[in-house]
Amino acid sequence: MSSRKRRDGASQPFEQVAGNGLLDRRALLGRGIVLAGAMGTGGAAAITGAAAEPLQNDPWSLEMGSVIPAYQVPSRFEKDVVRTRSNPNNEFRNSHARTPHHLLQGTITPNGLFFTIAHSGLPDIDPAQHKLVIHGLVKQPMVYTVDALSRYPMVTRTHFLECSGNSAPMFSSEPLQVTAQALHGLVSNAEWTGVLLSTLLEETGIDPKAKWLLAEGGDSLGLHRSVPIKKALDDAIIVLYQNGERIMPGNGYPMRLLLPGYQGNMNVKHVRRIKLIDQPAMSFYESKTYSQILPGNKMWLFHFTQEVKSFITHPSFGHALKDKGFYEVSGIAYSGNGRIAKVMVSADAGKSWAQAALQEPVLPKAFTRFRMPWRWDGQPVVLQSRAWDEAGNVQPTRAEFVAARGQTEKPVASPLAFPNQHYNSITSWGIESNGEIKHVYA
Amino acid sequence: MSSRKRRDGASQPFEQVAGNGLLDRRALLGRGIVLAGAMGTGGAAAITGAAAEPLQNDPWSLEMGSVIPAYQVPSRFEKDVVRTRSNPNNEFRNSHARTPHHLLQGTITPNGLFFTIAHSGLPDIDPAQHKLVIHGLVKQPMVYTVDALSRYPMVTRTHFLECSGNSAPMFSSEPLQVTAQALHGLVSNAEWTGVLLSTLLEETGIDPKAKWLLAEGGDSLGLHRSVPIKKALDDAIIVLYQNGERIMPGNGYPMRLLLPGYQGNMNVKHVRRIKLIDQPAMSFYESKTYSQILPGNKMWLFHFTQEVKSFITHPSFGHALKDKGFYEVSGIAYSGNGRIAKVMVSADAGKSWAQAALQEPVLPKAFTRFRMPWRWDGQPVVLQSRAWDEAGNVQPTRAEFVAARGQTEKPVASPLAFPNQHYNSITSWGIESNGEIKHVYA
Repeated sequence: MSSRKRRDGASQPFEQVAGNGLLDRRALLGRGIVLAGAMGTGGAAAITGAAAEPLQNDPWSLEMGSVIPAYQVPSRFEKDVVRTRSNPNNEFRNSHARTPHHLLQGTITPNGLFFTIAHSGLPDIDPAQHKLVIHGLVKQPMVYTVDALSRYPMVTRTHFLECSGNSAPMFSSEPLQVTAQALHGLVSNAEWTGVLLSTLLEETGIDPKAKWLLAEGGDSLGLHRSVPIKKALDDAIIVLYQNGERIMPGNGYPMRLLLPGYQGNMNVKHVRRIKLIDQPAMSFYESKTYSQILPGNKMWLFHFTQEVKSFITHPSFGHALKDKGFYEVSGIAYSGNGRIAKVMVSADAGKSWAQAALQEPVLPKAFTRFRMPWRWDGQPVVLQSRAWDEAGNVQPTRAEFVAARGQTEKPVASPLAFPNQHYNSITSWGIESNGEIKHVYA
Repeated sequence: MSSRKRRDGASQPFEQVAGNGLLDRRALLGRGIVLAGAMGTGGAAAITGAAAEPLQNDPWSLEMGSVIPAYQVPSRFEKDVVRTRSNPNNEFRNSHARTPHHLLQGTITPNGLFFTIAHSGLPDIDPAQHKLVIHGLVKQPMVYTVDALSRYPMVTRTHFLECSGNSAPMFSSEPLQVTAQALHGLVSNAEWTGVLLSTLLEETGIDPKAKWLLAEGGDSLGLHRSVPIKKALDDAIIVLYQNGERIMPGNGYPMRLLLPGYQGNMNVKHVRRIKLIDQPAMSFYESKTYSQILPGNKMWLFHFTQEVKSFITHPSFGHALKDKGFYEVSGIAYSGNGRIAKVMVSADAGKSWAQAALQEPVLPKAFTRFRMPWRWDGQPVVLQSRAWDEAGNVQPTRAEFVAARGQTEKPVASPLAFPNQHYNSITSWGIESNGEIKHVYA
């Protein structure tokens, strides 16, 4: 905490502003980080003499390359940057595919790596045959095809989507030694384009008795969830496009309901039916699986909003620090309640904190990338991030979270009897003096 | 042009504000578009009686779906949403793959469909072996690996990238009957993450004699281009990530130079060498191919900035209007000089114009999606868009552009003797009474 101050009291950008080497975030905005000698020995190599005019004889520079594909995918050298799957043999149960956050950067999740949960595999839907019916407590029931929807006014908005069971491995009383992908891989972020549900409900008209709607998916599960009409009229979207192209099969092709900030399961994929009703339908997934089990034999029903959360992706479990010196600590923050207001980072397990830089533009209910300059002295540290949203919510410490929401003796796959929903506490990465990174509770 | 006015002089949102059915853009912001009866007969179908509680027996709803892939791609029903390729047999010449803008929405170009131009195929680069050398008029030459760069401060920014030969088919004196993909498919837009070049040049130091840098690619072409130092210190980025994942092989894997707003060819892919020099190198691609040929035996050297441009993607050539009634006209606008300030749309070949809605956030040197509500009465119309940027530049009409920059008798593949660079005039789509769409000059 030896932050040298200028005579006017302000710290210099490349001076330490919190324990264990955290630097002022202004170091990222301008110059000084490198001149300050912060890079240490591991950043890059100086070259001298003949090496300064290097020969470049890499094999790929000596031959004609391969053909450009019609639809391109990553390099074969990135074959490990994939979604990890819970059911790769497609057994007759649900399947998860998790986003590798520790290997990604920025804020957009590329379509290839956007997380998927499917309860009955991926349906092979012909978009020319698919229909969305809106009926029930409406004045005029309507049926919409993909073609018909393409004529309506559209909106384009960037939003995260998170399974309410994301981060559930952290309910375990012992920290699991796994990556950010395994802990937090059931959240992703995309630019969505589609038709506001309010536009379609204006066309059908709404019976004043309608207070909820029941959304039903077109896959063989026929998932259905109840959604308050108020949310439907606020910012709900019938999404047709994901990052510019038609929505992926694993994310709801050819159309899905998007409820920005609400738990993933409610954002019904392959949506084929929206029925306006006067009370919630108490479907299986809302009355059982996605209810929040609390300590003391209590539970919350209809806990929809994904709360403020952040986690550090770089460095994190699965990486290793090779040398002392400068590193950029970065990660993801988001809140179902709106924009991220602030992210603080600690390198001493929460004893001291410094404010991270937020990548602009900071959008509501969307990933915000935070960045923190850091000079590692080679001693053991614990890195943490903590986020605040514009509604005033703050991400809880693990102790605070467990006191309110409970924990389990071990990670539990069954959703029936253990708390496993809406986990959002601080994640802690312990870095040892050899550069190894562990998941710790601190 | 019969725009009925309210007593206070303001038009109603769903009233016509310019010729041939253009409506006030405020119709997109709230309600009224559907209640105003604008959808016509083609939007969606009303359902009555038993049909209002529809049976859903689509085959995909009756069986277990397929396995979730580790890296997902679009549905097989989207097999025609691909890049069109100029050299699918990989003959020993350059190759183009164009983005299908008429089939996409929003502002992000998905990585699978981001345009590619390669002069010697796609190199198969091992990122563990690739190096970037910065040398020449520097104080300390340095070499950077991918691993080394991962420790430096990064930035995440959304920018378009456009080949200066994009839209060159419009130099033709006759309008070609082709899609927006064929005309304008050599521009795309992504979220890029990497290290500011200024950060690395701070580390190497800059000899005061250095006024330019020469950037060289690692593929077998060894493309090299000269870049003013001022641009390098402004917003140039050594990009490592594209829409969150490692940059695609066709877009510069494992690292490329990004010069936001500058013509595509200068954004050297697979960049392996940056040499600081005191004057431009007059390389082949800057002194010949990418120089701007003008009428009167003149030409421009070093015409780097991609100027303000827009084009309508929906509806456009390749689509057809089935019925009278409401449509959303939408398209893309961008400028190498900064943010888009305004887009105007005409449905009567430029006789009258109305202001389009711009999708927020409007970012500098990035795609902005514009939207315009429109009620088609079934008569022939000509749709156009025209963009202004925050620097005060306006997209020229075709007549203005041709007078200043020339045209050719037919589209010309050879880059040697005909104007084929930096085409940015208005694009016009003529819609006939049967709903057919043609490319017209108007």
